[in-house]
This record gives sequence, structure tokens and C-alpha cells, in this order.
Amino acid sequence: MHSLDQLIDQIKPLDQESMKQAKHRTDGLLKPLGSLGRLEDIVTQLAGIYRTPELKPGRKQIIVMAADHGVFDEGIAVTPKNVTAIQAFNMTRGLTGVCALAHAAGVEVNIVDVGIDCDPLPGVLNMKVARGCGNIAREPAMTREQAEQLLLASANLAIAQVANGVSVLGVGELGIGNTTPAAAMVSILTGTKPEQVVGLGANFPSDRLHHKIAVVEQAIACNRPDPNDGLDVLAKVGGFDLVGMTGVMLGGAAAGVPIVLDGFLSYACALVACRIAPQVWHYLLPSHLSAEKGSCVALAHMDLKPFLQLEMRLGEGSGAAIAMQIIDSACSMYQRMGKLADDNLVLPTPA
Amino acid sequence: MHSLDQLIDQIKPLDQESMKQAKHRTDGLLKPLGSLGRLEDIVTQLAGIYRTPELKPGRKQIIVMAADHGVFDEGIAVTPKNVTAIQAFNMTRGLTGVCALAHAAGVEVNIVDVGIDCDPLPGVLNMKVARGCGNIAREPAMTREQAEQLLLASANLAIAQVANGVSVLGVGELGIGNTTPAAAMVSILTGTKPEQVVGLGANFPSDRLHHKIAVVEQAIACNRPDPNDGLDVLAKVGGFDLVGMTGVMLGGAAAGVPIVLDGFLSYACALVACRIAPQVWHYLLPSHLSAEKGSCVALAHMDLKPFLQLEMRLGEGSGAAIAMQIIDSACSMYQRMGKLADDNLVLPTPA
Repeated sequence: MHSLDQLIDQIKPLDQESMKQAKHRTDGLLKPLGSLGRLEDIVTQLAGIYRTPELKPGRKQIIVMAADHGVFDEGIAVTPKNVTAIQAFNMTRGLTGVCALAHAAGVEVNIVDVGIDCDPLPGVLNMKVARGCGNIAREPAMTREQAEQLLLASANLAIAQVANGVSVLGVGELGIGNTTPAAAMVSILTGTKPEQVVGLGANFPSDRLHHKIAVVEQAIACNRPDPNDGLDVLAKVGGFDLVGMTGVMLGGAAAGVPIVLDGFLSYACALVACRIAPQVWHYLLPSHLSAEKGSCVALAHMDLKPFLQLEMRLGEGSGAAIAMQIIDSACSMYQRMGKLADDNLVLPTPA
Repeated sequence: MHSLDQLIDQIKPLDQESMKQAKHRTDGLLKPLGSLGRLEDIVTQLAGIYRTPELKPGRKQIIVMAADHGVFDEGIAVTPKNVTAIQAFNMTRGLTGVCALAHAAGVEVNIVDVGIDCDPLPGVLNMKVARGCGNIAREPAMTREQAEQLLLASANLAIAQVANGVSVLGVGELGIGNTTPAAAMVSILTGTKPEQVVGLGANFPSDRLHHKIAVVEQAIACNRPDPNDGLDVLAKVGGFDLVGMTGVMLGGAAAGVPIVLDGFLSYACALVACRIAPQVWHYLLPSHLSAEKGSCVALAHMDLKPFLQLEMRLGEGSGAAIAMQIIDSACSMYQRMGKLADDNLVLPTPA
């Protein structure tokens, strides 16, 4: 894709005929009508996304967007900033949470540096815009041009993965301090006060939460992002990792594959992706309910109900990895169950 | 086990030292403390159950207890009664919902006839007590002796599976009409009125729900089970499938493996298993929140919070199959993640 308009145009409504056929087939499986609940809805959605009722197993991949944040300097995180780089490197060694969970689920992890504050790392795809973004409490995270270019590059990365055989994409992120910009985005995009969406991220002390709230308020007050302009929100109070995740959502939808969300960071990006291109919504699959404050607000705003309640708050795509197993389960239901017909409804003749 | 007392005695408290060591190890993994939420709790519980902090992958099996119910004659189900036998046979052919979901999760399905109203079926383990139990609206489901013998036989079946290498047991059932006795059990064991726990089962018409409620009320009024005597509850208002599931829970706990619950039927059995042997509770892992009315009441009574919200209401062990993937994910976290130490906290030296 060469432009954002071209990317948006590429995101089609789901194919209603394929959905109808998939639902008809699911209704004819050997079970009471509707009794497999949301597994049945997943299959219908997948058929609409893939534009065929014939679902085939394919490769699953989580793209982890990693970047640093200038707002770290405001003291909104207790984890040292260089942990972004260290954990990005640990992704290449299979040592992080998402790697362990992806292994259990048969999912690939693709780690991308979109703006870590370090030299390029071996084994990490280098799409670095800069060594960290601007401090949103005092300036925009990046220019609008930077946001648009990274959005397109990330979308094109997702499209290239699909061209390479990936049929389910998950989103993940790494970025010390990134719950602060995400909370700002959720606040703006849902019209909710910062105090209702700012949480403790990675064990930020609860007695300092008021400071984190104040930083988010300051970021919004000084940047004044336009809630109707998703790109403006991303550029002013986002971050490179958040732009990257949003780009993966737009690119995955344009390429016609489902996008599995992760936790709070992914909700912020899904909100902005839907603001940029409302059709993206149909390609989204939730995963878990993140324990981060503001999660319910963000999900309710999108009318997305998570499948999993595991009180997780790690990020990295960890929840997406687990949810991909539920998608596989739904496909197995669809492909392996017998039909409510014929020889499946009689007992064997006694010998 | 030769007696119920012997079985109950065999169920030990969890091993606190193994739990402490597992928690210590989880706390030292490469992530913010506690950020993998309930996955961390699962690992601690497993260590306590297995009595070692060294968790190894093992075989997973769902035991599906199948039986018919005399109370079917009261018109409390719309599915024909012979579907119990047909679906039990379809289990052996891999065509049912639980078979498809178990396949996706790498789980075995073990189908057992504890009282189907048919001749013995090829490929189905025959532990038939009778061709269906008594009509609980007018008489006890079975004698106390029958309940005790089947409970022991089912527990011994579970113990034998563990001896054979199964390390995670799930429970499932098949029995047209069985949400009626299960609702009676939940009503009695939680002290809740039948109208609050009687649901629509497999698409029972909502305009006839009052009749199903009346049948449950009648079953309780005519049998007067003692809520403090689990075996009395099972014998009077249960059914062979429900006794079988309860036996698997007691046997699995006695053999020292976790028991993964399924939906509403399994909640009824877990309530009665905990009434018979309170230590069983520590061996239980919930799976999904069944869409059947009364599910929240039953789970809240046991203080069990389901991991999955999929609006499923099929039974058969279908929810247990999906949840076993979450348990595998938790073990993968524990076994594969790097430690918060040493060489995992530095960046590579530039070449």
C-alpha cells in the first residue's frame, strides 16, 4: 500500500454469503442448535473474513511491536527503560512470556523494533523510526508524517506476512511506559476521564497513581488531539509501538485475515484503528480481559467481549497467544464434528 | 478403593512446600511480578496437587459418563431419549463436540456407559448399573447402595487411568434430561430455590420452563434429600451419569491429579463431591462459564471463577477440553520462560 487512503479502501466488509453458508453448516452439526455459543460465532466471522465457508488451518503469528517512550522521563513506570531493549532481545531467544505461550499454541512470534532506544538488535526486524518517541507530556510523540509512514510500513509488514502464508495475526507490544500513552488514547477516543482509565501497568505503586493520571491529563491538555482524527491521536499522544500495532490491524484487515487482540495496549490501538477505518472492527477477535484499569471501558466502547478472564497484565501478545487456541478449537468443531443427519443418528446394528 | 471412607481418606491436602517452591520459581520469571495472573495460580495449584514443583507434561483425558434418566418421562427435554445412546456411540467415532475440541487440545476422550437405556455399545466401556435411573419426580433415582457402588467404581476407573499415565482428568457427561436432576442437586446443595437454577438445557422451550421448575420442586418434595449427606442427594435426585462424574472427581483427587470441570452438570457434581469430601475442592479447576441458568449460583457457592466465557451449553466435557489448553499454557510459561537473572538482563555485546 502506498497511501493510507489506499489501505483503508482495501478493507472490505465481510462476505455475507460465506457467513451464511458457514452458519448453515454449523447449525447442521451434531449438537443442539447454538449450544457451542461463541465458538460458532467465531467460525461465522472467520468465514466472512476469509470470504469462504471452507476454513483451512494456516500459520498463526503474533507481531510484537517494540519501542521506547519519551514520557518515561516523567516517572510513570518503575521498570528501567532499557528493559524494552533487553526483552526485545529475549524475544529472539524464546524467553519471554509470549514466546512460552505461543510455543504452547503453535504460534510464531515476530519481533519488530519500531523505535527502541538502542542500537539495532540481532534477530529483531529493524523498522526503527527513532530511539524513542517524544515526551507526550510536553510535546507530540511524533510528527503526523512519521505516524502515517510507520502505520503504512506496519500494515505492509502484516500484508507481507499474509502473502507468506500467515492466516491468523495477533498483536503484541513491548515498551516500558506505554500504558501512559495508551490510557491517553483510550481517554480521548472513548470520551472518558483519565482517572477512569489510567491503571498501574507493570506494578506502578498505587500511591503514585495520581501522578500518572496527572501526566496523562497534561499530555492531553498540551497536545489537544482531535478525537475524530485517529492519526492525530496516534501522532500526538501515542508512540511508535502503538502506531505499529494499529498498522498491523489495518494491514491484516486489508489482507483479509482475522486480528487477535491482546490486552489494554491493543484495545487502545483497536479504538484508533476503528476510528481510522471502521470496517476493521469486523476483523477483530478479542482475547482476554486485561487486568489493567480501563480495559472494560475500552472493550465496552467497541462492544467486544473477551473470551478469557485470566487476570493477566503482561502484554507482549501473551493473551493473543492463548486465544488463538480458542480459534483453533472453533475450527476443529467446524471441521471434525459429525452432521445431524443420516447415519450419525442411528445405533449400530447388534452383531 | 474398597469403601467410600477409604476413598475420602486418600484425598490429601495439597503439598504446601511444593506450592511455595513453584510460586517462588514463577516469581523469578522474566516478567513483572504477578503479571500472568491466573496462569501463575494454576501452576501453584498443580505443584500442590502433584506434590512437586517439577511439572511434567502428561496425558490428558476426559471421562464422559453417559446414562438415561427416568424423569425424561415428565416431559422435561425436547431431545429424543435415544440420543443418549446415539451420541455415546458417536463418541467412539470421534464425531461429537467434545471429540472435535479434544482433538484440537490433544486430549483423549473416554466414554463410559453407566446407565444408558440400550444394549451395551461397541467401543463404549460398560459400567451400566441399569437401563436408566428412577424417575426422581416420583421415586429416588437409585438406591443408596447403587450410588455408593457406582461412586466407588467410577473413582476406581479414574485411579486406574492415572496409574496408566493420565495426569490431567476432565469430566463430561451425556444424558438426555440430565439438567433436571442437576438443577435439583444445585438447588438442594446451595439452598437456592429451583426457579433460580432451572434452565433451558438443550433448547427446552422457555414457555415450558415453569413445568421443568415444577418437576424439580416435586423431585425435592417427594424425595426430601438431606443436603448434608452428599450420597443421599445423589441417590435420591441425581442420576447414574452424575454419580459417575462425582466418582471421577473423588478418584482423581485421591490419585493426585487435577480435575477440570466442564459446565452446569459438573458444577452440580463438584458441589456434591465437596460435600462428601471437602478436600476435593483443592483439586478442581474450573473451565468455562456455562450458559445454563444456575451456573453462577453454583460456581459462586464454591468460589470458583471460570477462565472462559464462551456462552457454551453443550456439556460432554466440551468446556473441559478447551480449558486443558489453558493449563498447558500455564505449564509452558513455567517451563519455558527465562529467569529474572543473570544473562537474561543484559543486551548482546555489539559485534
